[in-house]
Amino acid sequence: MTVQLGPVAVSAARQAADFDPVQPTALGERDQVRQIAADSQVFDRIELDTVDELLDGYFRDPQASGYNLLSYRDGDRVLGFVAWGPRDLSEHGYDLYWIATRPDARRRGVARVLMERVEAIVRARGGGWIVIETSDTPPYAAARGFYARCGYQRLAVLSDFYRAGDGLVIYARRLNSKEAVR
Amino acid sequence: MTVQLGPVAVSAARQAADFDPVQPTALGERDQVRQIAADSQVFDRIELDTVDELLDGYFRDPQASGYNLLSYRDGDRVLGFVAWGPRDLSEHGYDLYWIATRPDARRRGVARVLMERVEAIVRARGGGWIVIETSDTPPYAAARGFYARCGYQRLAVLSDFYRAGDGLVIYARRLNSKEAVR
Repeated sequence: MTVQLGPVAVSAARQAADFDPVQPTALGERDQVRQIAADSQVFDRIELDTVDELLDGYFRDPQASGYNLLSYRDGDRVLGFVAWGPRDLSEHGYDLYWIATRPDARRRGVARVLMERVEAIVRARGGGWIVIETSDTPPYAAARGFYARCGYQRLAVLSDFYRAGDGLVIYARRLNSKEAVR
Repeated sequence: MTVQLGPVAVSAARQAADFDPVQPTALGERDQVRQIAADSQVFDRIELDTVDELLDGYFRDPQASGYNLLSYRDGDRVLGFVAWGPRDLSEHGYDLYWIATRPDARRRGVARVLMERVEAIVRARGGGWIVIETSDTPPYAAARGFYARCGYQRLAVLSDFYRAGDGLVIYARRLNSKEAVR
């Protein structure tokens, strides 16, 4: 059987791709991503520097830098972004670095869609684990609840790790238990 | 009271410094450090590339790269080395990346002396935690035993993290519980 893709079918395929709200972050979205990070309140100055380093690495070369970004778009507006990448020396391990939604787009499932997209990509690459490091402070309570609802297990809490009163919480989720246990 | 340091006192101070077997790794020791890593057997090709990246970063700028190396010396011979550094965004968290002793110098406490020196430096800088990530495979059993004997707590095991049959084990030790809980 031969499937013919005429102009109408091609246009429909393009429309379907355009309709996908999740796409690799574009260079023109850099300022919006920075603003979402700044608006999230839980990023302080030094962490925003880290967002810049991450954006620099991603726009230079995602593969070499290990930094990957996806935007959730509504037209030209970026509603949220996620940054993630493979762990060095590991075939199956990935880190989720940042996930954030702009304040006026919250409670619409943006972060959930971004998280599921990253998990789908990691699975497609044969990855088995996603690790998330976050803070144990009250401003991060919503993030911790989100990770738990997404099926991430809290592995450890290292109190005062970042600074006094600000500890490290490590979460991880195994994606491919059937595939990896062999 | 004035303390005068004459030639004799200076010479004695120099002698004492020379006698300390643990010193920052020197550029001329690079090949010995690579050889110790290669001889440790548990480093495979890709991990040796990582040792090179780490050495590059250290010799370029320890502060900017975050990579610090110490050698345990016997004359011109390097008996062991340790690589460690501060964790990004963290005031109190440090990572121990590698610690290795040359085969003919094992069971003499070289690694223990290196570990204690790193802990002393981290404490002096106000650091509260050292985190170690290693493998759950048999070739790393001696390393895992060493970390446990040094007081490191096993926080989590992520099976098959590195590749099938090769999981990630996370250890951590808290150094300054009195100081950090405030």
